[in-house]
Amino acid sequence: MRNPLNQKITEVKPSGIRKFFDIVSEMPDAISLGVGEPDFDTPWHIRDEGIYSLEKGKTFYTSNAGLMDLRREISNYIQRKQNITYDAAKEILVTVGGSEAIDVALRCMLDAGDEVIIPQPCYVSYEPCTTMADGVPVYIPLKNENEFRLTAQELEDAITEKTKVVILAFPNNPTGAIMEKEDLEQIARVIIKHDLFVLSDEIYSELSYQKPHVSIATLPGMRERTIMINGFSKAYAMTGWRLGYACGPEVILKQMIKLHQFAIMCAPTTSQYAAVEALRNGDEDVAEMRESYNERRRYLMHVFKQMELSCFEPYGAFYVFPCIKEFGMTSEEFAMRFLEEEKVAVVPGTAFGDCGEGFLRISYAYSIEDLKVAIGRMERFIKRLRAEK
Amino acid sequence: MRNPLNQKITEVKPSGIRKFFDIVSEMPDAISLGVGEPDFDTPWHIRDEGIYSLEKGKTFYTSNAGLMDLRREISNYIQRKQNITYDAAKEILVTVGGSEAIDVALRCMLDAGDEVIIPQPCYVSYEPCTTMADGVPVYIPLKNENEFRLTAQELEDAITEKTKVVILAFPNNPTGAIMEKEDLEQIARVIIKHDLFVLSDEIYSELSYQKPHVSIATLPGMRERTIMINGFSKAYAMTGWRLGYACGPEVILKQMIKLHQFAIMCAPTTSQYAAVEALRNGDEDVAEMRESYNERRRYLMHVFKQMELSCFEPYGAFYVFPCIKEFGMTSEEFAMRFLEEEKVAVVPGTAFGDCGEGFLRISYAYSIEDLKVAIGRMERFIKRLRAEK
Repeated sequence: MRNPLNQKITEVKPSGIRKFFDIVSEMPDAISLGVGEPDFDTPWHIRDEGIYSLEKGKTFYTSNAGLMDLRREISNYIQRKQNITYDAAKEILVTVGGSEAIDVALRCMLDAGDEVIIPQPCYVSYEPCTTMADGVPVYIPLKNENEFRLTAQELEDAITEKTKVVILAFPNNPTGAIMEKEDLEQIARVIIKHDLFVLSDEIYSELSYQKPHVSIATLPGMRERTIMINGFSKAYAMTGWRLGYACGPEVILKQMIKLHQFAIMCAPTTSQYAAVEALRNGDEDVAEMRESYNERRRYLMHVFKQMELSCFEPYGAFYVFPCIKEFGMTSEEFAMRFLEEEKVAVVPGTAFGDCGEGFLRISYAYSIEDLKVAIGRMERFIKRLRAEK
Repeated sequence: MRNPLNQKITEVKPSGIRKFFDIVSEMPDAISLGVGEPDFDTPWHIRDEGIYSLEKGKTFYTSNAGLMDLRREISNYIQRKQNITYDAAKEILVTVGGSEAIDVALRCMLDAGDEVIIPQPCYVSYEPCTTMADGVPVYIPLKNENEFRLTAQELEDAITEKTKVVILAFPNNPTGAIMEKEDLEQIARVIIKHDLFVLSDEIYSELSYQKPHVSIATLPGMRERTIMINGFSKAYAMTGWRLGYACGPEVILKQMIKLHQFAIMCAPTTSQYAAVEALRNGDEDVAEMRESYNERRRYLMHVFKQMELSCFEPYGAFYVFPCIKEFGMTSEEFAMRFLEEEKVAVVPGTAFGDCGEGFLRISYAYSIEDLKVAIGRMERFIKRLRAEK
């Protein structure tokens, strides 16, 4: 029998995050600090709205782009948060999480050979989605000394005649890095100069601890060049509902809606009703969860300092990205030994790109109690490693 | 500013179904027989299980391939219905409706230029999903005189050196045609002889009114060549839940699970819990709804005969596909005049392929009362058309 598979998919590497989860799931007393998922249940009033819609028999397809009520609330939310307007009828697509939005955007924008600039370390799906859409990923290794922000010079150096799209994902998974307005202004200048487009993954926009998140779409000349992606998973603790959205200029969104219609039909209906409630009455929940994450973030920065473990202070998302180069082993070796000897799972930085070597991603989407136990074990482990040297 | 879009997506035509819906939605007293969606709410005990999972706080990601409990139930269900075994751990992927399963399968199997044989009339997503995956659609116009079944000879004639995948979708949308075991055996012989693969969209498998549906995957030598796609939308009236699945040999499913992980993450969690209940305790609901559809089907065949409207008897899905060639107008003209003059929406056969010219798709996923009103108007309309001649 001939090979049933295409070339591209077989070359896509499996996610480096999963490997550790598989080991953890076999280890009953292990603590995981590995998952990129809020530890909170979805707030009750949001779940209740989903329940109500089911009781009422709202079990049918919605329109392809999503419930008009939801698209209006998304439009209002972005207006309120970012002071930028998207037309609910033509410029907003409700998707199956931010994941689908990323995939559909790249599929609609890339011709074979188009280069996509992907600053790393970054979320694991940008590269495979680019490859599967016939694009060519071009990496920029971000630097610890820049607090893992992208600089205009780094971007300039990566651009070629084939560059079409730049992926920006701030607040960042896995580093926790943010880009402030002034940083983005430098980047926007380069984007416009080279006539490029931005896929801006802002899924962690509500988890910015120093000042409110700024979207690059709000900068002059950038709205028409930006697909803004966001969703409900991280801000409202709604991962399992699988609901996100993409906003952008009609010329692109029209095609994305068409592809979404054929490939997905519509996002899950119950989730859409719940999301309307989240946007209407969820601000306090978001603020409370953000405060809780921030407390944990400050706790970790404090204990890392005590341990003398090198880590830049991240102001976004729910990750810290400490440097473990002093121990003279790879991220993967460190993570594996830490798991085996102390039963704590963290993710090697290399799961997010080669330039993550020498770093670990530690999620603080875990209760402060769990974090304290895990950090106690980490302290012991690090002492032992230092003694070995 | 340069063109932000890729070539392929701009060439994909919008769905011909939507156009009529848009007109209908502006026409308050119109009756639609246009939608391919059960008119039943999801059975209460299935909704209740979704509600219970929300109350319990099950709002997190599931594993990428879907809840293991659900995959086990899917495996049991297929075993029970088709007497064929799929390994829940490695050969089943839970998807966002059948739609995502079709898209992911084609993306994992097609290299640029591979030909995909698509018998028409057929569901509207096969062509765009093929095109977007760099495949080349090759159409077979099915014939009214064959009751819109695919024959081995028709398949033979369409095969070239570049053929890789054949899409089979029976019971069929829009014709209601079925393929029986003997029909499939002829097809399987050709598939194996030419070393091809089958994407078998069996979303209407529970809506077979003459005898139980047979999957081509159950025929000798076909399991390893078939991706079997099914879901909960049609059988359990669960369209809005967006839940389907793909089953097939591990070598293909492994890659499909990988792509699904990056592009979608996982299917919606609430829907997965509800679907477990559907498979465990939903047989009676399916039987009741099937009986109801069958009653309507027989009603339509009866009145078409009275009206002397030519229509082969379809034994599957919830569509009839009458021939309107006697009126000397195109399907689109007929559907448009019928909508304007009698305010009943049906879909022109051409929405499902050029060979649908001269036919209409009429859905009977509507109450018998609505059907009776609509058919009354149709009778009047047809009389008028005949008088005009």
